Amino acid sequence: MALALSWRGRGRTAPNPNVGCVIVRDGRVVSRGWTQPGGRPHAEAMALEGVDAKGTDIYTTLEPCVHQSARGPACVDLIVAAAPRRVVIAATDPDPRTDGRGIAQLRSAGIEVVEGLLADEAKRAMAGFFTRLEKGRPHVTLKLATSLDGQVALPDGSSQWITGPEARAHAHVERALADMVVVGRGTAESDSPTLNVRLDGLANRTPARAVLTGDYSNFSKLQLHADKPVWQHLAEPGAIADLENVDHLLVEGGAGAAAAFIAADCADRLILYRAPILIGAGLSALGDIGLAQLDDAHGHWRLIETRMLGKDRMEVYERA
Amino acid sequence: MALALSWRGRGRTAPNPNVGCVIVRDGRVVSRGWTQPGGRPHAEAMALEGVDAKGTDIYTTLEPCVHQSARGPACVDLIVAAAPRRVVIAATDPDPRTDGRGIAQLRSAGIEVVEGLLADEAKRAMAGFFTRLEKGRPHVTLKLATSLDGQVALPDGSSQWITGPEARAHAHVERALADMVVVGRGTAESDSPTLNVRLDGLANRTPARAVLTGDYSNFSKLQLHADKPVWQHLAEPGAIADLENVDHLLVEGGAGAAAAFIAADCADRLILYRAPILIGAGLSALGDIGLAQLDDAHGHWRLIETRMLGKDRMEVYERA
Ligand SMILES: NC(=O)c1ccc[n+]([C@@H]2O[C@H](COP(=O)([O-])OP(=O)(O)OC[C@H]3O[C@@H](n4cnc5c(N)ncnc54)[C@H](OP(=O)(O)O)[C@@H]3O)[C@@H](O)[C@H]2O)c1
Ligand SMILES: NC(=O)c1ccc[n+]([C@@H]2O[C@H](COP(=O)([O-])OP(=O)(O)OC[C@H]3O[C@@H](n4cnc5c(N)ncnc54)[C@H](OP(=O)(O)O)[C@@H]3O)[C@@H](O)[C@H]2O)c1
Repeated sequence: MALALSWRGRGRTAPNPNVGCVIVRDGRVVSRGWTQPGGRPHAEAMALEGVDAKGTDIYTTLEPCVHQSARGPACVDLIVAAAPRRVVIAATDPDPRTDGRGIAQLRSAGIEVVEGLLADEAKRAMAGFFTRLEKGRPHVTLKLATSLDGQVALPDGSSQWITGPEARAHAHVERALADMVVVGRGTAESDSPTLNVRLDGLANRTPARAVLTGDYSNFSKLQLHADKPVWQHLAEPGAIADLENVDHLLVEGGAGAAAAFIAADCADRLILYRAPILIGAGLSALGDIGLAQLDDAHGHWRLIETRMLGKDRMEVYERA
Repeated sequence: MALALSWRGRGRTAPNPNVGCVIVRDGRVVSRGWTQPGGRPHAEAMALEGVDAKGTDIYTTLEPCVHQSARGPACVDLIVAAAPRRVVIAATDPDPRTDGRGIAQLRSAGIEVVEGLLADEAKRAMAGFFTRLEKGRPHVTLKLATSLDGQVALPDGSSQWITGPEARAHAHVERALADMVVVGRGTAESDSPTLNVRLDGLANRTPARAVLTGDYSNFSKLQLHADKPVWQHLAEPGAIADLENVDHLLVEGGAGAAAAFIAADCADRLILYRAPILIGAGLSALGDIGLAQLDDAHGHWRLIETRMLGKDRMEVYERA
């Protein structure tokens, strides 16, 4: 349940992790919390607010933070003051300011701590936070809608529509879960995509939108502050989009932009929507990624989810 | 069970259908039969051989034939003489020499007949026979091994190996189930494929092997008797391969040959093996199939099976 709650904040809490928290007494949920838009209050603070948590079990998807901030107290202090019986933690916090010290402080306050439960799912839910800490760049999802033969457009560039309404709606949910969505200049020009979230009730979840163009230097680091415009605001051509508060980046093609992310080893997750159609001659999903031999292609990707969306099949791959 | 038996003959019985037959008394199987290599004996004749079938239930995947031949008696006559209680038939026989008359003769002999049980599965098992009668050409399976982005080779033409050993073994089973396997001249030259069945115990199931080259006239009918060599024997370049006794044709690429079958509307089944790799620039799975607009691509294919083969994913599509 805490994991499901953590997804509520995904794409809205950067640079803070989107944590989920549940407080349970005698097998009954007494409170829930999740990181709020902008990153505060933290999930634990929200769940503890106005609740007597003495003797309860607190489930949280990330090790509680030990650092105080102008915007709020350290979660560990809140929890120690609340005096629960036990804290169950999915993932430990790699942030050097916490990194195990949260767990240590809980234990030295006499609170039982269980760690590592569903840690992989927690890291997946908070992928942007973990990728930022490990690699100094956002977590990148590459989305492509292809035919069975892997084409993303006809020779004339038309790609509307390859997939059906269910797959397209799912892609809008992916947008809602991102901090920023980006397309290459070719796609911006040929498709004039709005890149907004057109789902009832989620229209306010449209992320920042950018176009990739111009300066390829330092691309492999997905540079945060480009001197020249690499990430331009979709709505304001020429204005540089800020990647500082982007923990989850969704790349929606086209072939050139997608290949740039793959070639730079900057794609962490692939989401493929495959329509049951054949296109033949057209535009392949990926441009040149600099592959020298087939052997080098193996071992990088792992299928983690697949299902039907109407007539189309969705596949999600992660780094192997 | 009769359906499973029918698959034993697949690729070996043309121009006869690969039928399966089971005889049951009081819930116990007393005999089984399937069409033998070359097409005779028929499944029913094999199952009835040396068995007292009086009062039994006979399950057969195809309506019993009513025509006698120099090579054997009509199955209907054998069954009437055996006097079973009931005959359960999956598919009716569209062969104009039978076409419902088998069922009528059984009924007028006082035998109960149930028809249409698992008829679609039966037609799938005997696809070559049905396609031959409906379209005057073999049933064509198009096999492609691709990367996630739909490439079948690197720019230099190398395609060994995209998929892993499990997928390749499965492709050998597909060969064993075909009467003939064919590749385009480009593939024959670049890969020098043997196209044989390299599975323990199935080495004798290597089908006829041919190369597609040269004369494109009448290709859309998959002409049986080409004046000029279109289907050349793999082992004897220049010698024309005979399509007369080919009911199941397996096309193993490359992009040009595959596109020719799609463009001519001569592919009935797609089997895709997809490795969890990205290739980028390379050779797309299909050459030009003459698609004018995206709308025309929809509605032709339907996913009927998908599963993992080692790290690779297999998908089977049939005409929608
Ligand atoms: N089916 C789908 O999922 C899908 C999705 C999107 C698009 N499409 C189709 O794909 C086609 C467009 O694809 P495309 O390959 O022509 O264009 P594209 O990938 O959308 O854009 C290519 C441009 O992106 C910029 N770019 C690429 N790598 C970069 C890097 N490392 N740093 C900075 N900028 C970089 C460059 O812009 P500059 O030249 O300005 O430097 C480059 O010209 C259209 O037909 C569209 O319909 C299909
Ligand atoms: N991954 C895979 O599943 C897979 C499978 C096979 C091949 N491959 C790769 O694909 C590449 C070869 O593909 P390709 O497209 O270059 O060649 P190809 O499709 O194997 O052969 C093309 C040739 O087939 C003949 N052909 C095509 N249409 C025909 C028609 N309608 N009637 C008669 N003949 C016809 C023509 O031969 P003529 O020029 O002699 O007339 C044509 O040049 C190789 O790199 C190979 O490794 C990959």
